[in-house]
Amino acid sequence: MTLRYRAVGFVIGLLLAMLALLMLLPAVVDLADGNSDWLSFVLGAAVTGIAGGYLIISCQSSGPFELEVRDAFVLTAATWVAIPAFAALPLIGLGISYTDAFFESMSGLTTTGSTVLTGLDGLPRGILFWRALLQWIGGIGIIVMAIVILPFLRVGGMQLFRTESSERSEKIVPNAFSMVAWILSVYGLLTLACGTLFLVFGMSAFDALCHAFSTLSTGGYSTHDASFGYFREPGAEWVAVAFMLAGGLPFAAYIRMVRGERAALWREPQVRGLLASLFVIILIGAAVLVVDRAYAPLDALREMAFNTVSIVTTTGFASTDYTLWGPFFVALFFVLTFSGACAGSTSGGIKVYRLQVLWLSLGAYLARTPSPHRVVVLRYGGRRLPDDVPFAVLGFLAAFLGSVALVTVLLGAMGLDFVTALTAASTAITNVGPGLGPVIGPAGNFAGLPDAAKWLLAFAMMLGRLEVFTVLIVLDPRFWRG
Amino acid sequence: MTLRYRAVGFVIGLLLAMLALLMLLPAVVDLADGNSDWLSFVLGAAVTGIAGGYLIISCQSSGPFELEVRDAFVLTAATWVAIPAFAALPLIGLGISYTDAFFESMSGLTTTGSTVLTGLDGLPRGILFWRALLQWIGGIGIIVMAIVILPFLRVGGMQLFRTESSERSEKIVPNAFSMVAWILSVYGLLTLACGTLFLVFGMSAFDALCHAFSTLSTGGYSTHDASFGYFREPGAEWVAVAFMLAGGLPFAAYIRMVRGERAALWREPQVRGLLASLFVIILIGAAVLVVDRAYAPLDALREMAFNTVSIVTTTGFASTDYTLWGPFFVALFFVLTFSGACAGSTSGGIKVYRLQVLWLSLGAYLARTPSPHRVVVLRYGGRRLPDDVPFAVLGFLAAFLGSVALVTVLLGAMGLDFVTALTAASTAITNVGPGLGPVIGPAGNFAGLPDAAKWLLAFAMMLGRLEVFTVLIVLDPRFWRG
Repeated sequence: MTLRYRAVGFVIGLLLAMLALLMLLPAVVDLADGNSDWLSFVLGAAVTGIAGGYLIISCQSSGPFELEVRDAFVLTAATWVAIPAFAALPLIGLGISYTDAFFESMSGLTTTGSTVLTGLDGLPRGILFWRALLQWIGGIGIIVMAIVILPFLRVGGMQLFRTESSERSEKIVPNAFSMVAWILSVYGLLTLACGTLFLVFGMSAFDALCHAFSTLSTGGYSTHDASFGYFREPGAEWVAVAFMLAGGLPFAAYIRMVRGERAALWREPQVRGLLASLFVIILIGAAVLVVDRAYAPLDALREMAFNTVSIVTTTGFASTDYTLWGPFFVALFFVLTFSGACAGSTSGGIKVYRLQVLWLSLGAYLARTPSPHRVVVLRYGGRRLPDDVPFAVLGFLAAFLGSVALVTVLLGAMGLDFVTALTAASTAITNVGPGLGPVIGPAGNFAGLPDAAKWLLAFAMMLGRLEVFTVLIVLDPRFWRG
Repeated sequence: MTLRYRAVGFVIGLLLAMLALLMLLPAVVDLADGNSDWLSFVLGAAVTGIAGGYLIISCQSSGPFELEVRDAFVLTAATWVAIPAFAALPLIGLGISYTDAFFESMSGLTTTGSTVLTGLDGLPRGILFWRALLQWIGGIGIIVMAIVILPFLRVGGMQLFRTESSERSEKIVPNAFSMVAWILSVYGLLTLACGTLFLVFGMSAFDALCHAFSTLSTGGYSTHDASFGYFREPGAEWVAVAFMLAGGLPFAAYIRMVRGERAALWREPQVRGLLASLFVIILIGAAVLVVDRAYAPLDALREMAFNTVSIVTTTGFASTDYTLWGPFFVALFFVLTFSGACAGSTSGGIKVYRLQVLWLSLGAYLARTPSPHRVVVLRYGGRRLPDDVPFAVLGFLAAFLGSVALVTVLLGAMGLDFVTALTAASTAITNVGPGLGPVIGPAGNFAGLPDAAKWLLAFAMMLGRLEVFTVLIVLDPRFWRG
């Protein structure tokens, strides 16, 4: 094994060891409840810990710890296979197949939030806590990846978010660890604030904690089959709106805010674009609900804000079955599934900055085509848009939607009806969670799908989570020859 | 009025005068049948002829007849509004609204083939002939536009099909008229061959002519509600397969073949790509029909070939309701709706060359991202791919699919259910014809949609037909300021 793969193995080993430790938390919950399920977590922790320890010992090296671009690709992809594979182990204790456990684990860690479990209200609390925890640590993983690794890999236009220090270096910046500490602090404090407010609005301490985990991570796992519909508490829904949105904003800007740059968030064009679009969409939707469905104005505003923010931030909580609101909302929410919120957040999908770059570069193309001599300079966020970004963004869009088309056809071949196949593919690749139709709609569940479909959808979630290209590049034979 | 708009008005006037003359043909058919409907055509011809004559007289000028890039945009867009608007007039004689007449006329001329008429078998033959004729002349218009005008306008990567003479000039090439004569001859001869073979396989002379018109133009209007299902004649279906495909191949290559370059068709990468993909898809689909649905192998091959070629060439004929074949075929045919056949043919959709450029440039992107120093030269059809083509192609894809999303949401707002809204938007912009679901599926009809949806879909057909960008550029306020 060459030195480079040793480094990859070593990091994955460390992450597995940390995962094993985290598995002991739900074991404690189950022990406290006097529930025998704690054994699944301890066994899972043992297997994971041994695998992690083996990797750490066999891959440790005396050389300096350095990651080059190619290694970072391998590390990223391998991590997002290894962690879900081991994190699934304790779920087998529920008596479900490894397929179901892997689907649930991948859905949790990618913060997708699609579930194969029913009867959540009656499950052991250890399992519910583990699902929420998977989303929470998945969320950290995504933010770290989006801030520290992806800009460096230049996939899908993420080079737009290179910082000055990363511009100067071909190595992952040495201050990555301090960046991770900052992310953890901000993310942790926001989670604490969210959980406290949930508590204030009447949730039990356990529900408040679990929902704070899946709100900040824009994951969407609930401890109740009825999701947020269980609480019937407008205040809690507004808190969720605020913190889903907080999870969908760029964490690098939070960090700059804390460090003194007060307007950092507002200065980001993707934040302004996201908030302005949400404002317009929610107002229009609420107006339609008031006029067409006779909703009270405040209820209309809250229901529309909750479900729109839930989908755009790719959380996937449901407060109600919005597919009953009529065809306009079904079509609107399907299209919004693809949007996503900001880069550098826990949200998935295409993301607002890509839609903005798309808008800018198509606008320039429209202006230039009839008048080739016209000079159009693209500026984004006050800076000149790097020349390679528009192509990378458009290429991302093509690969993203091409993947949706391919997965749809494959799901059709597995016997899923058209709406289920199309929306399952879309909701998995965008990491949103619920689809449309009676099977996987907001009121439905992924349990009844064939095993092959579950594996395919778990792969699709990973594909979307790693911005498609990271996975495609590692699957490209030329990558290994190069 | 400046000289440039005079030229535009003059050309549209000429085209309207020709349209008026063509309206006399169905009048003759109705007169021969002793049907009073001939009056609608004569009245329509009179109005159209007067409008055309007025434009010719008021816009004629003594200056030289020249079109620059900007004028060509205006001319193209204006033509595709004016011709359908006047061609709709005789249809009002059926007692339908102008909305329905315009939808039918736009659907015919863009060779989409969606219809609002039912009881086709009982309609006056003049009307049936007019619908077929609209598709046929629409087909010519599309080929001329794709060969003579679009490469010159450089929209959506069409500059790939600039000929050497057009490279040297900023004016539409003077040999455009000889090119049009060549196109007419090849298109006419292919139509004649197709009609003759339909006759041989048992169609009436009238049916053979009308179906030859809508086969070569890849339009899909039939003279029977059951479309090709009416004939129940395998031979006629195979003839249709061959000539739909012929309509989907690049006409410039036919012309080069006739002029002596024997391998011209086969040398085009889009032709080889189209045929190879069709071969694989048809074989797989036929195998599934044999195994899952117990079809006889030859029947499976024919049914699959007919419906696949019908959708990929964007014809939209139906030999059977393939949505009953199961979810795999529904998902597959929905995705294939977007493909389209070759540029420079009568087919719509994204088109094979764009999918090939997409594949090439995404492949290069995948190879280059992890190894920025790797040099990747893109070659297409033995020549280096011009630098501006990949971006234009990707931009086209984004604008195309963005239009589908927008039209879907608007149709949802008009009350169409999700599947109807999504597939109506898709089938209109790709110029295929049938959608999915009980309303507009292969066995359905667009008559029941609200008027607003019909206008929107007619616009969507034009948008797709003009490769999206031609319309967007003319709608861009900067175009008129420049």
